[in-house]
Amino acid sequence: MNLGQVLGVVVATQKEDSLRSSILYVVQPQDETGRNVGEAVVAADTVGSKVGDQILWVSSREAALAMPETFTPVDAAIVGIVDRVEV
Amino acid sequence: MNLGQVLGVVVATQKEDSLRSSILYVVQPQDETGRNVGEAVVAADTVGSKVGDQILWVSSREAALAMPETFTPVDAAIVGIVDRVEV
Amino acid sequence: MNLGQVLGVVVATQKEDSLRSSILYVVQPQDETGRNVGEAVVAADTVGSKVGDQILWVSSREAALAMPETFTPVDAAIVGIVDRVEV
Amino acid sequence: MNLGQVLGVVVATQKEDSLRSSILYVVQPQDETGRNVGEAVVAADTVGSKVGDQILWVSSREAALAMPETFTPVDAAIVGIVDRVEV
Amino acid sequence: MNLGQVLGVVVATQKEDSLRSSILYVVQPQDETGRNVGEAVVAADTVGSKVGDQILWVSSREAALAMPETFTPVDAAIVGIVDRVEV
Repeated sequence: MNLGQVLGVVVATQKEDSLRSSILYVVQPQDETGRNVGEAVVAADTVGSKVGDQILWVSSREAALAMPETFTPVDAAIVGIVDRVEV
Repeated sequence: MNLGQVLGVVVATQKEDSLRSSILYVVQPQDETGRNVGEAVVAADTVGSKVGDQILWVSSREAALAMPETFTPVDAAIVGIVDRVEV
Repeated sequence: MNLGQVLGVVVATQKEDSLRSSILYVVQPQDETGRNVGEAVVAADTVGSKVGDQILWVSSREAALAMPETFTPVDAAIVGIVDRVEV
Repeated sequence: MNLGQVLGVVVATQKEDSLRSSILYVVQPQDETGRNVGEAVVAADTVGSKVGDQILWVSSREAALAMPETFTPVDAAIVGIVDRVEV
Repeated sequence: MNLGQVLGVVVATQKEDSLRSSILYVVQPQDETGRNVGEAVVAADTVGSKVGDQILWVSSREAALAMPETFTPVDAAIVGIVDRVEV
């Protein structure tokens, strides 16, 4: 899994059917100290996160496992809101 | 998922059977501000996008989940046409 | 699989249901000589590792296979504690 | 999917059983203009391509979907011979 | 698939149950000319390779497909011993 921060929202009225009820966030990957690493990705929310939250997200096939319908074509999903990282 | 723009078309008359009815686009990955990031990929269209459209695409196994026949050997698919990105 | 070292813990009280019983560690990937390589990742523990341990971890779909519930949306898991690397 | 060119052949008499009938090519990834990008990979042929051909290849789990036996441990497969790229 | 050379062995007495009977090698990825590329990975052996052998290895979900028990949490496996590469 990866850490990151929710930056904003992607609005796409024309999309694959199984994505219709998903909120799609722009997520900036970050390291354990909150430093930005790499390019932003688009991830589906599954935990009610909001813009600005530090979150935990998964990629690849595991992302779809977090969706209500596991055959949704989603390759990044937010699966936790981070309280703190202890390193 | 990733953001990107449709650049053009790949013409391949000789291809794996399950790909025969797919339109294959060259897609330039872009970030949330529309800046190009990384190398172009070839993605199957599932939403009727056209050359020039800003789109949302998935990679890996999830791409095949967007196809009519989910066992199609496709590792990148366009799953949405982006109206706007709010960051 | 990859080698790495457990750096710390991620505390996230609000998370996807199937992740509730998992301990999530910050893991620094390392090479066979113990040198740090790349950015830290967050991995679920499956072998009782502790902060400071040199460990073996898997990524992608295989990580979920190491979980008690294989449909858990986890994309990195610790699957071994390394005694030594002979090269 | 990715574009690329077939560079040569890998000869491996001792291999996993399900790979015995596969031709394994060295493929140089290329962009839409035919420029080399990144390191060569080894991909199983599924469309009768030859050394020198410009081809379309998939990676990850989707590659195995292109094989006659979908549980073959293959993570890259050639799925099309490219006639032309229109960008 | 990728080419590489077996560098050594990872000894881990405490590991996930399904990995108990696997030999885990440190593998240095190489290109088609035998030049090292990128960082070493840890891969499970399935073909009886030895330290020093030039081998063919797969990553991601396909690696588990090469194991006797396909639900083993393995993301890299050696699937062939290379005789020669003709480019």
